[in-house]
Amino acid sequence: MEDRRETLAILGSTGSIGRSTLEVAARLRERFRVVGLAAGSNVTLLLEQARVFGPEIVSLRTERDAAEFRRRYGRKKVRVVSGPEGAAEVAGRLGNDVVVSAITGIDGLGPTLAAVRSGTRVALANKESLVVAGAFLRKEARRSGSRILPVDSEHSGVFQCLAREKRRFVSRVILTASGGPFFRTPVSEIADKTPEEALRHPRWKMGRKVTVASATLMTKGLELIEARWLFDLEPSRLDVLIHPQSVVHALVELRDGSVLAQLSRTDMKIPIQYALTWPEREASPLAPLDLVRAGALEFHPVEPAKFPLFALARTALEEGESLPAALNAANEVAVAAFLAGRIRFGRIAEIVELGFGGHIKRSVRGLAEVFEIDRETRERTRKILEQRT
Amino acid sequence: MEDRRETLAILGSTGSIGRSTLEVAARLRERFRVVGLAAGSNVTLLLEQARVFGPEIVSLRTERDAAEFRRRYGRKKVRVVSGPEGAAEVAGRLGNDVVVSAITGIDGLGPTLAAVRSGTRVALANKESLVVAGAFLRKEARRSGSRILPVDSEHSGVFQCLAREKRRFVSRVILTASGGPFFRTPVSEIADKTPEEALRHPRWKMGRKVTVASATLMTKGLELIEARWLFDLEPSRLDVLIHPQSVVHALVELRDGSVLAQLSRTDMKIPIQYALTWPEREASPLAPLDLVRAGALEFHPVEPAKFPLFALARTALEEGESLPAALNAANEVAVAAFLAGRIRFGRIAEIVELGFGGHIKRSVRGLAEVFEIDRETRERTRKILEQRT
Repeated sequence: MEDRRETLAILGSTGSIGRSTLEVAARLRERFRVVGLAAGSNVTLLLEQARVFGPEIVSLRTERDAAEFRRRYGRKKVRVVSGPEGAAEVAGRLGNDVVVSAITGIDGLGPTLAAVRSGTRVALANKESLVVAGAFLRKEARRSGSRILPVDSEHSGVFQCLAREKRRFVSRVILTASGGPFFRTPVSEIADKTPEEALRHPRWKMGRKVTVASATLMTKGLELIEARWLFDLEPSRLDVLIHPQSVVHALVELRDGSVLAQLSRTDMKIPIQYALTWPEREASPLAPLDLVRAGALEFHPVEPAKFPLFALARTALEEGESLPAALNAANEVAVAAFLAGRIRFGRIAEIVELGFGGHIKRSVRGLAEVFEIDRETRERTRKILEQRT
Repeated sequence: MEDRRETLAILGSTGSIGRSTLEVAARLRERFRVVGLAAGSNVTLLLEQARVFGPEIVSLRTERDAAEFRRRYGRKKVRVVSGPEGAAEVAGRLGNDVVVSAITGIDGLGPTLAAVRSGTRVALANKESLVVAGAFLRKEARRSGSRILPVDSEHSGVFQCLAREKRRFVSRVILTASGGPFFRTPVSEIADKTPEEALRHPRWKMGRKVTVASATLMTKGLELIEARWLFDLEPSRLDVLIHPQSVVHALVELRDGSVLAQLSRTDMKIPIQYALTWPEREASPLAPLDLVRAGALEFHPVEPAKFPLFALARTALEEGESLPAALNAANEVAVAAFLAGRIRFGRIAEIVELGFGGHIKRSVRGLAEVFEIDRETRERTRKILEQRT
């Protein structure tokens, strides 16, 4: 009998989002068939995933790892590829009904573009793609007919609230931020926070880099840039509120005074599943959100003094062009230095400001330029780091 | 030049909802033309409204008031009618694009039915129509092609959240209740509350009867019955949470774990305007909802011991048929007795229980039966009151 299930490829299958996606796919196995998996260097986990889901193609970052996979994998019927081209091959195959793009960092951009160009539905978890190349990806999606659906909880929330509303009725889209581990810490005490403290995110379990970027609110600033491209909304209609409980993920304010909001438990499987099954909704095994137990829901404005990087991200949002790509690159370098113990938490903003500040805005026409901006900004920021540590 | 504006008739134009509707209509005068006004006995205000909006037809409860209107109204070009037939004539004219049904109590049922039968769009503020004759009105609306849109803030909230969601994806619809003035009062102290205290509603400005019914949560129980018919949802999927801040009006829980919510300031002009302009949204002169100022949003379960009438309303919701009509009648009599100073607050529930308890469930096929159930329950409840006061 013919297999009528939707085919699913997962880029970044061994990461946090990738693993959650496979959990969802396993539960919805009547509906989805996993055909492609792209991983980084976790050969053991990819082997395990491949044995369970039996994909047609897998990819690893290096050819050495790919060779190891071939050697250890028992089954014959799989194509094993490697490198950026490998991931792009997994992403761009015409047999994919849905591609989950969850490779972290700028490395996710190429494979995301390959998926978008194939005209398929792309469940986008990679933050950087839209941040560094939003206008470009939008254009490519329009050309290919690809539909980009958000996986991020905040953007999924906006997407669900916007549902039937015409853009001209929307006065403001608000993403919530938990405020991270230091929201209630006085500005004077934040400066000396250690990686350990910064990694204690109160609500979401995420990767290390994004957790630190959440503590500075840089993540939220970059999410505004993503929202700009995902929902075609000018910067003036995009805003952030701090909401320490992380129950409300997004709010859409309409011009007649109504506000629509999306709420859920803080489990990434919820927005992942919605991106996979949209416009349908499948049952969830999670207990429903209990608003009585959730406690009082608070909303606070973002204090600029506490989150200088957020203001920087707002500038990049408003000015656009090459600025978001440069900001992202400078931030990645500074966060990595912090995680490596080279700088204190309070100096992340300083390093980013210097690395980003040295960038002169220019227009971005294609991927090559994006990678060039990324490379040169990282280099400049690394030099600044060396001079100052 | 031809007037292409939508025509609007308002039943209950001199009441709270009616006046707010006219405020909205005045602001949106490029879009709406008021063609009909039905009032009770406030001749002076109706005259004022008629002079401003120049309707083609007006109605008053008594022929004496209608005669007074004719005498005092300067303009010729208006038809002045009276009585239930008069209100039904205003409601049922074929020239109405939208009818706002806002006559309070069971008196609103006849005119609402006339509007529904005319096949027009009905913005329904009258709570009793769906409570006492929900199944019947739904059937009539299906037959005539009339679309019933909610005006109540909670139901408007549900309507906006449900927008594009298929009913089978909805696991629960939750209406919020402010909890009224006694939510934080110990059960032991509620019994002796005076009408003055019961009328101090913390969030909404409403009529006296509905304010008292809010304090007992009966209003919320009746709203669940309305929701059942408005949204075609079985009782088990309908619920209430107490939310003292009245910022979130309704929540729709979906089976995949997402919850959509509608929020706004507590101003009835917001849901009224949406019912008029749906599916469009027009700008509002109100300042946007400020979630930072609104303070922490809390949600509490309904304590049955504190709100015995709510449990009774749930029974009526679940058992259906003639029970909601009987419950509504018993409640109206008891609340009137409380407002007249004849019984203490704590005895409202007792009287309702006895008046409602004497009713034997039967099926409801038409309006005559509804009125009969209403009449006999009122009579029985009045007798109980006389015996016990």
